[in-house]
Amino acid sequence: MRDRRNIRLLLAYDGSGYAGWQRQKKCLTIQGVLEEAIATMTREEITLHGAGRTDAGVHAVGMVANFTTAADIPCPGFLKGLNSILPPDIRILKAEEAEPGFHARRSAQAKTYCYRICNSPVQLPTDRLYSAHLPVPLDMDAIRSCITRLLGSHDFSSFEAAGSRDPRTGTGRGAVRNILAAGIEQSAVPGSHEFLITGDGFLRHMVRNIIGTLLEVGRGKITARDFSAIISARDRNAAGPTAPAHGLFLKKVHYESVVDNQVAGL
Amino acid sequence: MRDRRNIRLLLAYDGSGYAGWQRQKKCLTIQGVLEEAIATMTREEITLHGAGRTDAGVHAVGMVANFTTAADIPCPGFLKGLNSILPPDIRILKAEEAEPGFHARRSAQAKTYCYRICNSPVQLPTDRLYSAHLPVPLDMDAIRSCITRLLGSHDFSSFEAAGSRDPRTGTGRGAVRNILAAGIEQSAVPGSHEFLITGDGFLRHMVRNIIGTLLEVGRGKITARDFSAIISARDRNAAGPTAPAHGLFLKKVHYESVVDNQVAGL
Repeated sequence: MRDRRNIRLLLAYDGSGYAGWQRQKKCLTIQGVLEEAIATMTREEITLHGAGRTDAGVHAVGMVANFTTAADIPCPGFLKGLNSILPPDIRILKAEEAEPGFHARRSAQAKTYCYRICNSPVQLPTDRLYSAHLPVPLDMDAIRSCITRLLGSHDFSSFEAAGSRDPRTGTGRGAVRNILAAGIEQSAVPGSHEFLITGDGFLRHMVRNIIGTLLEVGRGKITARDFSAIISARDRNAAGPTAPAHGLFLKKVHYESVVDNQVAGL
Repeated sequence: MRDRRNIRLLLAYDGSGYAGWQRQKKCLTIQGVLEEAIATMTREEITLHGAGRTDAGVHAVGMVANFTTAADIPCPGFLKGLNSILPPDIRILKAEEAEPGFHARRSAQAKTYCYRICNSPVQLPTDRLYSAHLPVPLDMDAIRSCITRLLGSHDFSSFEAAGSRDPRTGTGRGAVRNILAAGIEQSAVPGSHEFLITGDGFLRHMVRNIIGTLLEVGRGKITARDFSAIISARDRNAAGPTAPAHGLFLKKVHYESVVDNQVAGL
């Protein structure tokens, strides 16, 4: 194994047509399609390690994954070759040699997710697959005052999907995750907002549950004080609903050391 | 007829799944789907007049259309009702009462089209349906120097699709059209460009043929001097290829008087 090259890929995909990242026997998945395309080129069985497992319908513009291979194909060959084999809703943005020890998931320091909300009365058709539509008045100041309360290390059980952690693969930190940056940006699409959240790790459905709860704050159904109580409650039943998958993008995986609350270049 | 209300619609659509605007017997078209949805609400046969006929695969964010009706449905009812009947790739953005004499095509003073080009080596999957991909070096300065030569009144035969005008419905101005504004904007998508062209009218495929020719200038296959000669030639064979439909958006229809070269709010 030690002579195998370690190839690192930067990926983007439209998750609309897929049952998520993780390989499944009977469903079309991003990992499954990629592993098959890579195997077609290398003529080996390939295991592709993704930085994270995005859910069904979730998109990515900056997923990172790696695989090892004995094949002699140069990296630009992987970039061109895979993009010619892959369907147009999955693209390789970059292919490069990685250090032997590099592992897309284990080496990751943090991830940034982006959640897009269209708050206009009517959503543009060209935006419908890539943004959740919520045509109700939103108190963005109230949302902003809450989103910063996510910063730092917290037990995020209140935002964790039921049965989301496999105790056999637990890391010992339970539901504690460190949120390094969280904020809202005006989108290039008028009337839309982009929620950006960077953390050292995320529980299953955590971003979508946080967004779903923040939107309840925006609608006045949950007060800012309630929001802090929801974090403290460590109880999924205390929080709001899960926001739809198609508004969520994995934006960036960070491998450099990320200084708390000072995530450059977000 | 004089007691019929005249309803003006502002529309957006994703043209990917349609054989263009104009009603056809055997194809799914934007006009056909809209007329059927309106007829479902009004229980009348409806003729919808669009400001222009977009080709198969072309999108719109600001199409205007009108129809007359005897139905007593208030405009907000049309907005909500039609959006609940229509497929999600066609949306009514606005419905309002128009003057009896208003006609979406005949009353239009000008139209603005936007053409989106992705010039990155790899196109983001979420952009693939709404932007043409041209992963080659482009001399944008050369393109900019040419695009302004379109301004003013010219015979645009060189950019007209064969057989595009029906002599029976000719307006007497032949292939002469007045271009009021033309320029390039940096897109919100990195590595992408948006070409914006406003004119008092457009020949069939005119924008796509202009873009296809400007991209040949950007690739160095046509010089800036050649570009002027192509306009003067009044010969479709002199110009470059037709750019793909899916990069084109009808952005705005202007009904106010448009002052040459000073098109506000583009």
